[in-house]
Amino acid sequence: MSRWTPDARERLETAALDLFVANGYEATTVAQIADRAGLNRATFFRHFADKREVLFGGEDVLAGLFGDGIRAASPDATLAECLRAALAAAETAMTPRQRARAAQRVLVVAANTEVQERGLLKHAKIAGSIRAALRARGADELTARLGAELTMLAFSVAFERWMKADDDEPFSPFAEEALSDVRARAAELVLPSRQSA
Amino acid sequence: MSRWTPDARERLETAALDLFVANGYEATTVAQIADRAGLNRATFFRHFADKREVLFGGEDVLAGLFGDGIRAASPDATLAECLRAALAAAETAMTPRQRARAAQRVLVVAANTEVQERGLLKHAKIAGSIRAALRARGADELTARLGAELTMLAFSVAFERWMKADDDEPFSPFAEEALSDVRARAAELVLPSRQSA
Repeated sequence: MSRWTPDARERLETAALDLFVANGYEATTVAQIADRAGLNRATFFRHFADKREVLFGGEDVLAGLFGDGIRAASPDATLAECLRAALAAAETAMTPRQRARAAQRVLVVAANTEVQERGLLKHAKIAGSIRAALRARGADELTARLGAELTMLAFSVAFERWMKADDDEPFSPFAEEALSDVRARAAELVLPSRQSA
Repeated sequence: MSRWTPDARERLETAALDLFVANGYEATTVAQIADRAGLNRATFFRHFADKREVLFGGEDVLAGLFGDGIRAASPDATLAECLRAALAAAETAMTPRQRARAAQRVLVVAANTEVQERGLLKHAKIAGSIRAALRARGADELTARLGAELTMLAFSVAFERWMKADDDEPFSPFAEEALSDVRARAAELVLPSRQSA
């Protein structure tokens, strides 16, 4: 048994992203990641199922936060307010360090189809978490699926804008604005009276 | 050079799905699929990049149909009408044979994460095709992404309902109804005046 290393996960993530960006995702081995982090392969596999998982560990955190946010919303909150609560709950994961890593991750994911597939599976799991939380509040299945998609789209848009903003900007205002934008566009798409040319 | 076999693709799909269902996706080899179809491995690889692709060839067809449907819509069609046109265009791919295969495919995909990942990538490509077609009609990026998600959700719902219906039911009425349902739910989610408890 190796000693418990409290920041092992962090160190492995940092080492992996640095190596992925420098040498390419395919060319990087788990042994190299562990070595750069000053740890061994066994420690790597205690924290991550495989190499791809290093890129998407944060997605599991997000799935939990979105679901928690909805469950913690006021009992008389509307479904629209629940979507806002989900996005607001993500704030704690959107730290400056995550932002720096996200920039690296975007580069790695764009270059690799296999990695994109894993990313989409994570995306689907996050959407599933939101959907389940909305269902638990009484939303029907279709409303819950739609609410999950709208939330995910707002999150993606907020995230893209946040990545382009100054380093010290908090995430919340971007989330609020993106959700508002998504709702306005959805209203245009679904209301016949507002669609006339 | 082998002889040209006009129905090779069809035969390979049928053989593959039969084997996936009978013996499991993982346990089935390309050689077995080709053998059951009375063809050789080289012919298989002229039609499919790999084993997973047999399950999702129809998704490429759908991506094309959705995009074509939007491009062929009347120049003064609203965006909402374009979504309806996209779904209506899918009708030609929703044949009784596709329906029978889809039932097999659902079983195979449900049992295999790797296959699900490929399915999600295809889903993303179809959404990308819809988004590009909406952009070409002047929709802004966010509206186009949202329109693509609403269309995909309506298609999924229509497909699920169609699979549960009688064998000879056409797809179109399910598509119409599902899109109408998605729009109604979206209106409830985005319009403050309709959210009050």
